[in-house]
Amino acid sequence: MKTKAVQDFYEERFAHCYGCGRLNKDGHQFQTFWEGDETVTRFTPDLNHISLPGFIYGGLLASMIDCHGTGSAALAYAKENNIELEEFNAPRFVTGSLCVSYKKPTPMGPELVVKGKIKEIKGRKVVIDATLTVEGDVCATGEIISLLVPEDFGQK
Amino acid sequence: MKTKAVQDFYEERFAHCYGCGRLNKDGHQFQTFWEGDETVTRFTPDLNHISLPGFIYGGLLASMIDCHGTGSAALAYAKENNIELEEFNAPRFVTGSLCVSYKKPTPMGPELVVKGKIKEIKGRKVVIDATLTVEGDVCATGEIISLLVPEDFGQK
Repeated sequence: MKTKAVQDFYEERFAHCYGCGRLNKDGHQFQTFWEGDETVTRFTPDLNHISLPGFIYGGLLASMIDCHGTGSAALAYAKENNIELEEFNAPRFVTGSLCVSYKKPTPMGPELVVKGKIKEIKGRKVVIDATLTVEGDVCATGEIISLLVPEDFGQK
Repeated sequence: MKTKAVQDFYEERFAHCYGCGRLNKDGHQFQTFWEGDETVTRFTPDLNHISLPGFIYGGLLASMIDCHGTGSAALAYAKENNIELEEFNAPRFVTGSLCVSYKKPTPMGPELVVKGKIKEIKGRKVVIDATLTVEGDVCATGEIISLLVPEDFGQK
């Protein structure tokens, strides 16, 4: 049986994100998992996600790092608080800030792999360091500050 | 006659970007202009560009700020170097780094407006401060470091 991603455990109302919502058929449907002590998101872009010829659009890379951050934060927060993930109890984070450093042009074709290290987890905030590689080569790095969505979101 | 955007003056090979390429029919086709001493990019997202219900996906906002940065850099570099823009001589920049701070959820519906101030221009590097507003309300700010594409790009 395929391991489920953290995004599979978001409440339905939180599962429409263009980046990582399992219910957004037009979106990227990024999926984030634990891989040892790190988190991982893998994605192979469409050919139209280009920047300059032969390379991936930086906005797509930023999007991938963004949702990798919120997914990683949800995984880390659940672990920290002994929440066993099931349908549909995953904590939902949003992005407070996102910084991406583009180290070299990211080639079009092979799978993109973003790995995350949980740098800080304190209260409702989780900070994640992300590294994006293609075939082992670092193409971009990022830092994401993720914030837990208030429980009364949408009820005020 | 409609004023042309800087992206209308990119060489054809540099006009396929998913964010701002006039020749990418699947992309966002962001367009950037001077507006006084500032630069501006306006865009109304599709309904599927959501994050949480009622709000815009942060990856789309990062994408818009990203291309606003490269477009603003091209405009600033052309002005600084007395290049009169015509088909197809616009300098082409790529993003070295992108930082976005999400100040509040960005509502779905009205037009998004990103304005840019040229913070630094030195050699091949241009630094831009960006502010994203919706109906005058600041929803996100960003800093983009843009780098001029080498003239021999793709010839090596």
